[in-house]
Amino acid sequence: MSTRPTRELHKFSGATREKLDALLDQSVIGHFAFVEDGLPRVMPIAIVRDGRDILLHGSTGSPWMRLLATGVPVALSVAELDALVVARSAFESSMRFRSAVLFGSCAAVADDEKVATLDLVTDGLLPGRVSEVRRSSAKELAATLVLRMRIDDWSLKISDGWPDDSADDIAGDAWAGVLPVRRGFEDAVPAPDLRAGIRVAASVARLSAG
Amino acid sequence: MSTRPTRELHKFSGATREKLDALLDQSVIGHFAFVEDGLPRVMPIAIVRDGRDILLHGSTGSPWMRLLATGVPVALSVAELDALVVARSAFESSMRFRSAVLFGSCAAVADDEKVATLDLVTDGLLPGRVSEVRRSSAKELAATLVLRMRIDDWSLKISDGWPDDSADDIAGDAWAGVLPVRRGFEDAVPAPDLRAGIRVAASVARLSAG
Repeated sequence: MSTRPTRELHKFSGATREKLDALLDQSVIGHFAFVEDGLPRVMPIAIVRDGRDILLHGSTGSPWMRLLATGVPVALSVAELDALVVARSAFESSMRFRSAVLFGSCAAVADDEKVATLDLVTDGLLPGRVSEVRRSSAKELAATLVLRMRIDDWSLKISDGWPDDSADDIAGDAWAGVLPVRRGFEDAVPAPDLRAGIRVAASVARLSAG
Repeated sequence: MSTRPTRELHKFSGATREKLDALLDQSVIGHFAFVEDGLPRVMPIAIVRDGRDILLHGSTGSPWMRLLATGVPVALSVAELDALVVARSAFESSMRFRSAVLFGSCAAVADDEKVATLDLVTDGLLPGRVSEVRRSSAKELAATLVLRMRIDDWSLKISDGWPDDSADDIAGDAWAGVLPVRRGFEDAVPAPDLRAGIRVAASVARLSAG
């Protein structure tokens, strides 16, 4: 049985690997769908791209993470909403978004690659953080299941246009335009138990300022 | 075969319908997982909550929307990232998030309920917009498939804490805290073809200011 879907893929003629990678790099959370006992399951999980693969991690105690580790077929959905597209009719109103669905399967990262792979995850979620924190203990590593998803096929859709109203509607009195979603982070907030005199980490300051 | 999952549900002891509803009301996009030919599929789709149901809509030409309309089992994932939780170790670093998985099935909304249901969708995505735009034409209505998902079961997870570092790590030099995600919308941008003298819609101004 092929995992290659035959419908609704690659609809967007301008879909390139570079645009897919940009979306994956911006997305913090992906939604992993799989089948269990014939029924659909889906889990939101933090994702980090490593080349053409997706890295994810969780507790070794999670039954669903362990099921993914067996290599069952997986469909991964990511979406970033960029703006509401406010047209002069409800029908033409839409959204600017970038979304992708990736098809493949996961495998557990081997013990001897675990530290390096988790470093990729840490720096992928907060660039530069690895150099600022202590390394994971053996006990912490043993409690962490790290999976690598290999991608067999993918689909990308990008919607970035303006309202596409008819001449009749444009001649009317309704406003039209876009309402862009805010991006980025607010100012960092120190933990209640942070010791006095410790300045905000460089990795955090970079994201906070960005 | 029951659609009721038996694992990993209701882990969060404080999960209430009110907290689930708040998450669903804030989430614009949900990820709909289903099974086709034994394989996992997942689609990001705009969602609006109507009481205990979820409304979604798309083109009558979408094969996957039409498959959902047949009532196949569906798992819907929504997640909102609230902050990066930056601990003094990679292991304790995490995220503040709210996520839910809802299990149920969809049915097409009957023709005589379509206008009212689409109004709920329009006002759900941009409150007050229905009163500002013309009604949908018969042709537009015929091109739109509106689905109502009834929920059989759901799971909610909320993570809203601070770094939970050991005493040894707290005594170290690493910074710890949270980096909150920015929320809301930027200033509205008028469409290039907007006629002169049309002021920004009240519905848009409210969201833009919020």
